[in-house]
Amino acid sequence: MEVTRTNFKDSLSTVYSAIEEADFLAIDGEFSGISDGPNVSALTNGLDTPEERYMKLKKHSMDFLLFQFGLCTFTYDQAESKYVIKTFNFYIFPKPFNRTSPDTKFICQSSSIDFLASQGFDFNKVFRHGIPYLNQEEEVQLREQYEERRSQSNGSGNPSYISPNSNKGPGSIPEEHREYIGRVVEKVESLFTTSEKTKGVLCDDIMGFQKERYIQISKVDDEERKRRERQKQEREQEELNDAVGFSRVIHAISKSGKLVVGHNMLLDVMHTIHQFYCVLPEVQNTHHLYMNTSPASAIFEIRSSHWQQRTGRRGVQRNLQ
Amino acid sequence: MEVTRTNFKDSLSTVYSAIEEADFLAIDGEFSGISDGPNVSALTNGLDTPEERYMKLKKHSMDFLLFQFGLCTFTYDQAESKYVIKTFNFYIFPKPFNRTSPDTKFICQSSSIDFLASQGFDFNKVFRHGIPYLNQEEEVQLREQYEERRSQSNGSGNPSYISPNSNKGPGSIPEEHREYIGRVVEKVESLFTTSEKTKGVLCDDIMGFQKERYIQISKVDDEERKRRERQKQEREQEELNDAVGFSRVIHAISKSGKLVVGHNMLLDVMHTIHQFYCVLPEVQNTHHLYMNTSPASAIFEIRSSHWQQRTGRRGVQRNLQ
Repeated sequence: MEVTRTNFKDSLSTVYSAIEEADFLAIDGEFSGISDGPNVSALTNGLDTPEERYMKLKKHSMDFLLFQFGLCTFTYDQAESKYVIKTFNFYIFPKPFNRTSPDTKFICQSSSIDFLASQGFDFNKVFRHGIPYLNQEEEVQLREQYEERRSQSNGSGNPSYISPNSNKGPGSIPEEHREYIGRVVEKVESLFTTSEKTKGVLCDDIMGFQKERYIQISKVDDEERKRRERQKQEREQEELNDAVGFSRVIHAISKSGKLVVGHNMLLDVMHTIHQFYCVLPEVQNTHHLYMNTSPASAIFEIRSSHWQQRTGRRGVQRNLQ
Repeated sequence: MEVTRTNFKDSLSTVYSAIEEADFLAIDGEFSGISDGPNVSALTNGLDTPEERYMKLKKHSMDFLLFQFGLCTFTYDQAESKYVIKTFNFYIFPKPFNRTSPDTKFICQSSSIDFLASQGFDFNKVFRHGIPYLNQEEEVQLREQYEERRSQSNGSGNPSYISPNSNKGPGSIPEEHREYIGRVVEKVESLFTTSEKTKGVLCDDIMGFQKERYIQISKVDDEERKRRERQKQEREQEELNDAVGFSRVIHAISKSGKLVVGHNMLLDVMHTIHQFYCVLPEVQNTHHLYMNTSPASAIFEIRSSHWQQRTGRRGVQRNLQ
């Protein structure tokens, strides 16, 4: 099943269930490149210690983008004595969420791009319809932005609608605007004196640059105000979830605690942590880096005290196994 | 007219003629990003001096890829009193030429990629069918590689076919290969003694990894040898031209000496020089950086003594106007 920004939200419950049911998982990533230093074949070799391999990849591979994430869930069917396999192919792209969100830069390596192109890889699907994501720090920042705005509009924070020049007293209205302002004041005053439950008053349209803008003033009772606040909060929560995007799948894999297998998998695990969680720990903090390798496959378990420390600081404790 | 790797060679004479006939040219580039430092709106401002603008763009914009190059040629038709316009849209990608050719790394900026995606930009066309290119230094290196190989096969250089271990005397043939080697020696000897003009002898096939390999030994007279050398040289020249690729269009624009106009064009000119010619000169060497700007368009003329020096060193003197 192909998953892009277009069908991500609708597919999420299917993905969650598949992870939930599974006995074990397999993952594979496609990247925009492998090495920004030594050429790919010289970067690593079979005699590397786990620490050496980790440090080389951390130094030379992390500025590339993981832009396709493959997930297979394997569930053993006792009655049929066979595995039921579900496959998901996620296209990933750090589409900027708004004007203040991070504008990610990533490196592309011609030989990697050329290889993917020769295999029919669909770059348009990545760049046009890739699912966005946030790492933990970015998620926390965005959450804080929302909370700050919310506390402002509740009146419990510093109200942002007081003009910084308000201590100068009321401004004087230029002659040519006096009639217009008078008309608006009249409309607003009539809104306060009427007992009618009115939807509000629409001030004159303001023709802005490129699009029409207008100011609407509404009178609402307490119940209506609370309903609107709740609505806004729900909308914000949804926006936040959309921005966290693909990272939610990684959180689900991590929370499941299930075994994850893959081929030449250290790079995939490192990119996954780096892109969807946090900065990779230095090697001196990687107390528990186990490897169990066979020629064609690898099972990794990374438990970094540094990483737990970081994630713990955020009040979230997750293990990626 | 869209030009990709697929139709580049067939279109080249049309492009050359259009440049040749034109009264002036217009260019525009699309890039994989704008700034790897300050955000795009903060990078430059209207009060920059030419030197400041140049230095900022040189520092923060040159690691992105120019991956689409638009060219319009304008030719005045006296009889009709109007301009005849020809448009070319080149897709550019540094596809590695062979295993020793440069494996270019370039940065992508999410906001730029997202903007291009929203405008329907076709990334697959760039990465699957983009025209390759070489800058002057890479072209010279490749030319030297070819010349070295040619002089070796002419016997005038160090012959590369002498095994580095040949001073140890003839190797001994292992028992299990003796029959096979004997059969091959017989075939080759019969080739020397026969007066027949034979095409050669095909030694036993060798099954290599993934593809069939074989060794063919041919007997040729002097005339045939020269014909083959000529053929090989022509093939190499064509390979070299293919590798220089899109840079040939830039060379033609440059050689034409025609006026080139564009919008916000400093960035386009800098990318063009950086990608298809050579490293951009430091500002202290940019003795002649003239700008003549109007709000919506710009005409630039860059004449760098540093650049002329570099290109002059290669025996080529080109001005990009």
